[in-house]
Amino acid sequence: MKGKGTRIATFVRLPLYRNFLRSLDPMPEHISAAKIAGALSFGEVQVRKDLALVFGGGRPRTGYVTKDLLAGLESVLERRGTGDAVLVGAGKIGRALMEFDGFSSYGVDIIAGFDKDKSVLGKTESGKDIYPLNRLSGFCKKHPVRVGVIAVPDDDAQAVCDLLVKAGVQAIWCFTAVRLKVPDEIFVRYENLAASLAALFARLDGPSM
Amino acid sequence: MKGKGTRIATFVRLPLYRNFLRSLDPMPEHISAAKIAGALSFGEVQVRKDLALVFGGGRPRTGYVTKDLLAGLESVLERRGTGDAVLVGAGKIGRALMEFDGFSSYGVDIIAGFDKDKSVLGKTESGKDIYPLNRLSGFCKKHPVRVGVIAVPDDDAQAVCDLLVKAGVQAIWCFTAVRLKVPDEIFVRYENLAASLAALFARLDGPSM
Repeated sequence: MKGKGTRIATFVRLPLYRNFLRSLDPMPEHISAAKIAGALSFGEVQVRKDLALVFGGGRPRTGYVTKDLLAGLESVLERRGTGDAVLVGAGKIGRALMEFDGFSSYGVDIIAGFDKDKSVLGKTESGKDIYPLNRLSGFCKKHPVRVGVIAVPDDDAQAVCDLLVKAGVQAIWCFTAVRLKVPDEIFVRYENLAASLAALFARLDGPSM
Repeated sequence: MKGKGTRIATFVRLPLYRNFLRSLDPMPEHISAAKIAGALSFGEVQVRKDLALVFGGGRPRTGYVTKDLLAGLESVLERRGTGDAVLVGAGKIGRALMEFDGFSSYGVDIIAGFDKDKSVLGKTESGKDIYPLNRLSGFCKKHPVRVGVIAVPDDDAQAVCDLLVKAGVQAIWCFTAVRLKVPDEIFVRYENLAASLAALFARLDGPSM
């Protein structure tokens, strides 16, 4: 389990390395792990380990050949599936997630929203579409969507989850407090913001009752 | 560490037990762990363990005396500090957090927002105040605020963190990707939404590169 977690953490950082290398203008012939670590505020050891996973071994002291490193990262990242997600529940949290500009640096995005409430349909501020919920299945057939984000009220969460699974998503990112029932092969990640904040206060109050 | 984590998890659930008992009308003389567990979708063993922490021991098979259980929960929760937080950065994510209605069931709340951008000052949809950033310190002197939420762009995060620490908060809930420098006694919880979604995709792609 630890091994798997480590590799996922590494993979999450790979787009950041790629984006940094792409941003270099002019691109230097060589680049050191120390320089990459400094630019991204990572530890140098972590950078070496992450990049060793891409190249399967260590590098000489002269640093990495920048264009080979970039090509290697792009090749690894391209072999992956798309990072496209859809969201159901275009309320305050839902729309804020759709408009969140931090996703792009990780190569993931929420490409469309769905809601049963007609009054929120249309476009978000940045121009993303919010469709009626009955168009979810058709949309997922046309687009390579792999993750569904649930940001509906708790009472609607299970029904929306069932729709997303039927539409073919492989994982759910759930912002409700409900424990979802899903087929074994569907992975669910819960993001309980209220419990997170409450846990922070609980920690201040210390462990003793 | 495990013990501490467990107790914090328990404490986070206590307001839910209290709210459920308060909602009973009429209040029954006795109530079983099974009934509480069913209503809140918790496991019965977990409920027994959580409530044993409040009462320091087991209960007879007849169930808990409802009013004693409620009084015990209220007493434990009242001995705690307030659950008041302030937020800096009233952009999309920030305002969505201020308007999030899930906090109340945990007894915590974001009571006011602050921003350096004059165009977002005023009231949120639900009537919470968004003040100029230079009023943060004065506000924290008048209100028992213990947690500061940071939802500003990455480049402003450290400066805002410093202001919050000076204003007297004891913990930071940080929605930026920046690693903050804080005094040892300040606890920081990071909520990196982009990395969370990216990790979900990375898991789908499997651990192997």
